[in-house]
Amino acid sequence: DKELKLYTIDAYEVAKQAGMGRRINTVMQTCYFALAEILPEAVAIEKIKAAIKKTYQRKGDAIVQKNFAAVDAALAGLHRVEVPEAVSSEFAKPAIVPEDAPEFIKTVTAPIMAGKGDLIPVSQLPADGVFPSGTTRWEKVNSALNIPSWDPDLCVQCGNCTVVCPHAVVRAKEVTKDHLEDAPEGFKAAKSASFGFPNRRFTLQFYAEDCTGCGLCAAACPASDMEDDSRKALMMKPKPTDLTEAREYIQFFEQLPWPERQHVDYSTIKGAQFLQPTFEFGSSCPGCGETPYLTLLSRLFGDRMLIANATGCSSIYGANLPTTPWGKNDEGRGPAWSNSLFEDNAQFGFGYSLTRVKHREMARDGLKAFQDQLGKEAVAEVLNAEQHNEADINDQRQRVAALKDKLQTIDSDEARNLLTVMDLLVQRSLWIIGGDGWAYDIGYGGLDHVIASGANVNILVMDTEVYSNTGGQASKSTPMGAMAKFASGGKRTGKKDLALLAMSYGNVYVARVALGANPQQTLDAIREAEAYDGPSIVMAYSHCIAHGINMEDGLKQQYKAVKSGHWPLLRYNPVLDEEGEQPLVLDSVQPRIDLDDYTLGENRYQALRRSNPELAEELGDIARQQMKRKWNLYKAMQSLPSSNAEH
Amino acid sequence: DKELKLYTIDAYEVAKQAGMGRRINTVMQTCYFALAEILPEAVAIEKIKAAIKKTYQRKGDAIVQKNFAAVDAALAGLHRVEVPEAVSSEFAKPAIVPEDAPEFIKTVTAPIMAGKGDLIPVSQLPADGVFPSGTTRWEKVNSALNIPSWDPDLCVQCGNCTVVCPHAVVRAKEVTKDHLEDAPEGFKAAKSASFGFPNRRFTLQFYAEDCTGCGLCAAACPASDMEDDSRKALMMKPKPTDLTEAREYIQFFEQLPWPERQHVDYSTIKGAQFLQPTFEFGSSCPGCGETPYLTLLSRLFGDRMLIANATGCSSIYGANLPTTPWGKNDEGRGPAWSNSLFEDNAQFGFGYSLTRVKHREMARDGLKAFQDQLGKEAVAEVLNAEQHNEADINDQRQRVAALKDKLQTIDSDEARNLLTVMDLLVQRSLWIIGGDGWAYDIGYGGLDHVIASGANVNILVMDTEVYSNTGGQASKSTPMGAMAKFASGGKRTGKKDLALLAMSYGNVYVARVALGANPQQTLDAIREAEAYDGPSIVMAYSHCIAHGINMEDGLKQQYKAVKSGHWPLLRYNPVLDEEGEQPLVLDSVQPRIDLDDYTLGENRYQALRRSNPELAEELGDIARQQMKRKWNLYKAMQSLPSSNAEH
Repeated sequence: DKELKLYTIDAYEVAKQAGMGRRINTVMQTCYFALAEILPEAVAIEKIKAAIKKTYQRKGDAIVQKNFAAVDAALAGLHRVEVPEAVSSEFAKPAIVPEDAPEFIKTVTAPIMAGKGDLIPVSQLPADGVFPSGTTRWEKVNSALNIPSWDPDLCVQCGNCTVVCPHAVVRAKEVTKDHLEDAPEGFKAAKSASFGFPNRRFTLQFYAEDCTGCGLCAAACPASDMEDDSRKALMMKPKPTDLTEAREYIQFFEQLPWPERQHVDYSTIKGAQFLQPTFEFGSSCPGCGETPYLTLLSRLFGDRMLIANATGCSSIYGANLPTTPWGKNDEGRGPAWSNSLFEDNAQFGFGYSLTRVKHREMARDGLKAFQDQLGKEAVAEVLNAEQHNEADINDQRQRVAALKDKLQTIDSDEARNLLTVMDLLVQRSLWIIGGDGWAYDIGYGGLDHVIASGANVNILVMDTEVYSNTGGQASKSTPMGAMAKFASGGKRTGKKDLALLAMSYGNVYVARVALGANPQQTLDAIREAEAYDGPSIVMAYSHCIAHGINMEDGLKQQYKAVKSGHWPLLRYNPVLDEEGEQPLVLDSVQPRIDLDDYTLGENRYQALRRSNPELAEELGDIARQQMKRKWNLYKAMQSLPSSNAEH
Repeated sequence: DKELKLYTIDAYEVAKQAGMGRRINTVMQTCYFALAEILPEAVAIEKIKAAIKKTYQRKGDAIVQKNFAAVDAALAGLHRVEVPEAVSSEFAKPAIVPEDAPEFIKTVTAPIMAGKGDLIPVSQLPADGVFPSGTTRWEKVNSALNIPSWDPDLCVQCGNCTVVCPHAVVRAKEVTKDHLEDAPEGFKAAKSASFGFPNRRFTLQFYAEDCTGCGLCAAACPASDMEDDSRKALMMKPKPTDLTEAREYIQFFEQLPWPERQHVDYSTIKGAQFLQPTFEFGSSCPGCGETPYLTLLSRLFGDRMLIANATGCSSIYGANLPTTPWGKNDEGRGPAWSNSLFEDNAQFGFGYSLTRVKHREMARDGLKAFQDQLGKEAVAEVLNAEQHNEADINDQRQRVAALKDKLQTIDSDEARNLLTVMDLLVQRSLWIIGGDGWAYDIGYGGLDHVIASGANVNILVMDTEVYSNTGGQASKSTPMGAMAKFASGGKRTGKKDLALLAMSYGNVYVARVALGANPQQTLDAIREAEAYDGPSIVMAYSHCIAHGINMEDGLKQQYKAVKSGHWPLLRYNPVLDEEGEQPLVLDSVQPRIDLDDYTLGENRYQALRRSNPELAEELGDIARQQMKRKWNLYKAMQSLPSSNAEH
């Protein structure tokens, strides 16, 4: 009736041809003006190009030209679809969520996802406001153009791809041969690379509908065909239109068992890939440099983790209504996650810590009071249990469960009170998490206070060197010479050395890591931080769209950041000092490439080179000298005698 | 009519005899209970002693016994004064302030001092709320029992006494012989110790009515009789009852000229004593360790200083209604002082800085616009003036005054606007000031942000290692093992190394000073900090009543803090680094006395030794090891090559 005109365009293809990767905004804008007829087409095109020039010229002429090419190609790519008189299609619009989704997902979450949240009757919302966790799995974004494709024969099963995936889309399991008997046709698996287990099979799967196609997994893959090194074990290939098979594989994969946690080798990336993540399918950018660290944390400690999360990207993708990526594992255990403000998140986490200590004390006191009824030996075992590794933790869980069963038979207020705190007798893993805007700037006063307290808390700083979520403002972590909001002429002051500040206390575990440079060192640092009975802080290099990079190069840039000396890897472990050893370990070697080799790959630095080359060179020189000074200082610290402070 | 009974007691004498110094609370309490007859005397005494035991036993048995002795001696010291039928005295109560006080002081300030502020009619209060500054000089506390006495023959005129006086009560002037012709009889002076000026006379005077009798001046005096070293150039002697002479001397002294600032040698303590302070007679404790630093600052820069003062002791004694110790010199110039909060004082001072920069820019732009009318050469001279020393500043003041005179003849809004910012063309000295509770704790996030900004601000941290004003709570500056509120079992974590944190930036001037250990280094550091065109921070050891010391030993404890390695003196000057030299200078030598030699003199450490000797020893050992580690780190930093960062 309204004389609908329908046009389609394969904008990604046009953008790709124009050399713009996945950036389709210019293409779509051109089509809009061409079709909307607000302006004569020629005038519209002219104005679009003028706007492009104004917006992008600081990013370089090449980018302007690519956008021009995209404009010119856009109209050619438009196809008009004739609208028939009556509906003739036999396709039905797929359901927002599958039929087997839980009731709440179908009645509350799905309508919100569909943009129809206002239509949900109040009676359908939970009276206590509690929403289920781990619900991103029901929100299939299907945003990837390419998805990973695996060659089991080339694969060395190292686990790199699994660990770097920002969305926990890549998953590995190791099962026995029998488990695969009923596998659907085409389900890929390989003999396990672990020697001595001929019956074990390794399989790598990809959640195609959750994948964003960022390509970090393929970039992290070290294995290629010796005769044709363009053929790698993991490569990005166009995503099939029909995902029926892919869904079948995932369905089969999901019912394969995860290994028992106490039998997994936590100490290697190869081992850690077999741990189930409890952080998955978040709404972070494709190729996000932050979320791989969170996924790794969730694999290692997700079943007993408390998280205090500062405002920032991680608070957004960490709880983006109506779904949340923080969930639970197949045993039903997951982290307790809460978001606090920029200015008080460390203190908020410190509050967790105080509460945890108090609750554990209450549990211990309560158990002692009931020891005659529960059995002195059983109580003593629980109270004196070592909880250093996953087997210990598992044993303790069983002891606590047994005592809880007994407690439930005692009819008294004291017993019921005790039951509410019994779980605290299983060691919790407390993490205070945020970005550099929080840790270096707005929340730093509190962070400093908390690490100075001596409390057993772990801090993870996902350092993008800029306020990412609020749009790219400079923080004290922003490096000299990088452009950012409030530093639009290039930052004139150096990057704050949070590691050195933390090390100055002596009793703080401190690490600087970069997954793209050394995943094993990242894993070591995170585990040491967690094991240390005192404050720990891990600074994790997180590449970011705000750096002006192709995100699939994120890991490469991490590597260069380390290699150039911009981001020296280190671990400072007070336990070593207590044992009379030198506490500082430099995990990266003397800078081996020039700072330019790193910064040339990032538009945040390049922008200044174009707009003010003299200043860029001057700031680059200062940055180089400051790096040298810092490196020398670290080396000097490394050669100091241990203070043997605790003995 | 009411049958008044009047008793007197020389409580200070009783306390002194009991070995309690100036502490008279126990003596007065005993008298109160004896006279008030609330309880039978014997019962009252018993209860007082029980309370003493409870309150002081943590401070040691000796202190308990001294208090017991004071109780016993108190009643013997009571004298009843017979009250006659009619008033027979010929003494009149002296006026609160002298007759020659300004009108405002007499009508507003004096009634408030007398506790009669409520009787002041609103019409007498300034409509705009402005109170005059520098009014402590009208509030004669007369609290000293002993005051300094000077021997001109023994004196070496070093300036130490002048500089350490917490209340600017000790003042020196150097004048020519003629000036002393009309001196009142007994007015003391000596030939100047500066060679080559036979006609110069040096005089040292004491504001007896403002003196608190703390004795720091005498403690700082290095000159004694070679034949009898108990006879020093400066000694504390009982304050005369009749102060007529003392007042005459001060009156005469005040009309003697201060030297012209541009002719004073700022670079030595000997020279700096001749600068007029603009901070005087504050309400800080007798023997305060903080205020000597402020008096020194006020001598050096008080005539062109902006002060942002954090909450704490310094905000209380800095503006204690109805009087303020911050005033102006004889030329009418003084600092602009304002108090901000614990949590934002650094930022508040940063705001001063931004405003100063903006106002100067407005003045420069305005002058350029008027250069035809004002004379191109005169304008260029003002705009390009060097302002490195006091002679430069003086010249610039005259240039600015001359241009202001001319501007006043121009009848335009622009000229009138320009006049409001012209004074900014004379270099201001911006100081952000506070204690360790502010700098290490509550205000640290802001302080860190401000030093990272690269702005030209100066920060003075008067480090008492505890929240002094709020009653002695532990801060992150409190040393390991010291007792404080919230650390009543002895602080278990080490002292935060604010100097190291600040040095980590590389472009921050950093100094750690202690007036009692090295006054010359203190002066050097403060002057270098002020001269550095970037952020500067000076941490100043400030002994405090909260340390549990006899305050007259404050300087000695400062000396021991340095000598033991607890408080290593240092200066980190980025200018040296720019010039290719090593920027870190350690001004104190390798620790030469044991930490115990320092801590044994302070009750904050002793308290733990008594209540928990094992822990005290353990924490002492750790503190010693941490000190060693820090010293080694400083030494290592000192041997690093200069980064030559700016070239």
